[in-house]
Amino acid sequence: MNQDRSVAVIGPVLVIGTGLIGTSIALALRRAGVDVLLEDLDPGQAQVAAAMGAGEIAGPTAEPSLVVVAVPPRHAGHVLARASSAFPSATLTDVTSVKERVLADALALGADPVRLVGGHPMAGREVSGAASARPDLLDDRLWIITPTEFTQAQHQRAAHRLATTCGAYPVEMSAAEHDRAVALVSHAPQLLSSVLAAQLIDADAAYVQVAGQGLRDMTRIAGSGSALWTDILGVNAEPVADVLDGVINDLQRAARALRSVATGDLASIDVVTEELQRGAVGRSRIPGKHGAAPSAYAEVAVMLADRPGELGRLFAAVGETTVNLEDVRIEHVLGRQSGLVELSVQPDSVATLEEALRSRGFDVRG
Amino acid sequence: MNQDRSVAVIGPVLVIGTGLIGTSIALALRRAGVDVLLEDLDPGQAQVAAAMGAGEIAGPTAEPSLVVVAVPPRHAGHVLARASSAFPSATLTDVTSVKERVLADALALGADPVRLVGGHPMAGREVSGAASARPDLLDDRLWIITPTEFTQAQHQRAAHRLATTCGAYPVEMSAAEHDRAVALVSHAPQLLSSVLAAQLIDADAAYVQVAGQGLRDMTRIAGSGSALWTDILGVNAEPVADVLDGVINDLQRAARALRSVATGDLASIDVVTEELQRGAVGRSRIPGKHGAAPSAYAEVAVMLADRPGELGRLFAAVGETTVNLEDVRIEHVLGRQSGLVELSVQPDSVATLEEALRSRGFDVRG
Repeated sequence: MNQDRSVAVIGPVLVIGTGLIGTSIALALRRAGVDVLLEDLDPGQAQVAAAMGAGEIAGPTAEPSLVVVAVPPRHAGHVLARASSAFPSATLTDVTSVKERVLADALALGADPVRLVGGHPMAGREVSGAASARPDLLDDRLWIITPTEFTQAQHQRAAHRLATTCGAYPVEMSAAEHDRAVALVSHAPQLLSSVLAAQLIDADAAYVQVAGQGLRDMTRIAGSGSALWTDILGVNAEPVADVLDGVINDLQRAARALRSVATGDLASIDVVTEELQRGAVGRSRIPGKHGAAPSAYAEVAVMLADRPGELGRLFAAVGETTVNLEDVRIEHVLGRQSGLVELSVQPDSVATLEEALRSRGFDVRG
Repeated sequence: MNQDRSVAVIGPVLVIGTGLIGTSIALALRRAGVDVLLEDLDPGQAQVAAAMGAGEIAGPTAEPSLVVVAVPPRHAGHVLARASSAFPSATLTDVTSVKERVLADALALGADPVRLVGGHPMAGREVSGAASARPDLLDDRLWIITPTEFTQAQHQRAAHRLATTCGAYPVEMSAAEHDRAVALVSHAPQLLSSVLAAQLIDADAAYVQVAGQGLRDMTRIAGSGSALWTDILGVNAEPVADVLDGVINDLQRAARALRSVATGDLASIDVVTEELQRGAVGRSRIPGKHGAAPSAYAEVAVMLADRPGELGRLFAAVGETTVNLEDVRIEHVLGRQSGLVELSVQPDSVATLEEALRSRGFDVRG
């Protein structure tokens, strides 16, 4: 929570769509003492949310000061327009992961332009439904806010306060910028992960057996549900296709260069080297966490002894230091309790952490 | 170590190339009591390895019974051929990540066909050099062995014993099969990761700022060193190009479908849905660890309280159960100690783990 950063949004807030995100927003608002009304096409979902303390089921006389539409992108424009006519003075916002098309749909269907402002809290999960919601899901996350050229300042302000009341950090950009950004960093990578994983379908079982951590990392998100992703990719189709075209172009160059190398033109490998080097440069631009300054974490590698409980002992030891653990990767070896653990930390914490772990008898890699 | 699985390989073993893999093999052989001789183009590297207890520097009268060539793939064929004439009765093997071209080079340069057998221990690290070597680097890893049509049984057996003496599991396939397998599960994914990361170079900083865990996972290996990867991709050029062509083809289909959707042909989205579904199927074929049966791990998600030491307390609690932790992912929230931790375990361990963690006061996701 970051309540000190702003005044809480003025309720009552009507949340339409009590899935994971909608219910989490409702719980966060309740945590801040804001009145919340709940509505869902599936009354059972709304009741689950209400039973969790997310607010009250909206009745026919509801008069929300702000409406949050948390339904799939394909339906969001329609629901915003309906809310606009039902609640003639409320701020209208949504939380879908595609912005230009949703706002255009809402305006085309008659939503009041001055009260409409798009939003997208950046907190995905690989689960869904009200029962998975949490009041702290959005704490310290970015929440992108996309006003239109018509949005009035008071409604824009209300969207910001919604975000900060939920514990998130509002960041403003245009709807078109938002859609290109998420196409680049989320939607196209999702499809790429699926396409790579799809290449494994017809492979010999012996081939797949030798897969290592790299392939596992690259195909993890290919396990995500296809229904929501179909919806997202369909609604943000053109920006995603633009990113894919860039990827295809680079892959074609690399594949051509490799064919040339295979037929004896060894100098063509320079094209591949350049792409590998460009990849390392691009990689270095990714921030370590949502919104933090880009930073290359340093890794401290520890080889765990093959005994039960070593992982617990390691993390207990890390916890006794002041070092903040940014990430963890475990590289297992076949059939054993443990393996190599890579702890990602800020570069200036490496010496402290290595010394602390060595002094506790851990096998820290040089 | 799995010494009980076989008789140790007969020494002395000459390791040519005392980088990470060569020195780790030498240390593993020494651990098993096998005599080891060391050689490197850079005498300093060989001395580092010798000082670590990896063996003795090879003198002019060395008479190894087995030669392990652990130099980059571009040079391996030449070094194998040279070793063949220098040591007329020794088994000749290598440990490079490309097999067909290396063996063809060695044969073309006059290596003795009956003594030659390819090898590839599957244990990459993101570090290099003798100083990073470890005797247990290959414990419980797969070690692919690629005999040629000429390899005699006694030399094939020696390659197997080399693998088992180092603690690894030998798996046999043809050189061509090996190269197609690693192109699919390692070499092409490496290039794909780089190409995806390269798309970020010219992106607006605000776009990159919203990157999440999915993009970080998919571009992690793009940070790997370009020199070794240039060498590997160049030597395994054709199988990698074949995999890339499959990826390009699928991406083009998806991009075309998205363009059609953008211009109003909504039914084209089915192509994208199908690709997402194919990705989930392909993903499910990947084994959880090297050589283990393919298995979809189940995830137990725990939201940590924002207090120092919670991660340590969590892993200590896991350690008190009998549950084997397969993997861990931490999803941080901005500027806080902790966040959401996803513990991957065998599906039949989920209930046990959830109950154990709940009873210790952890906030386990439903």
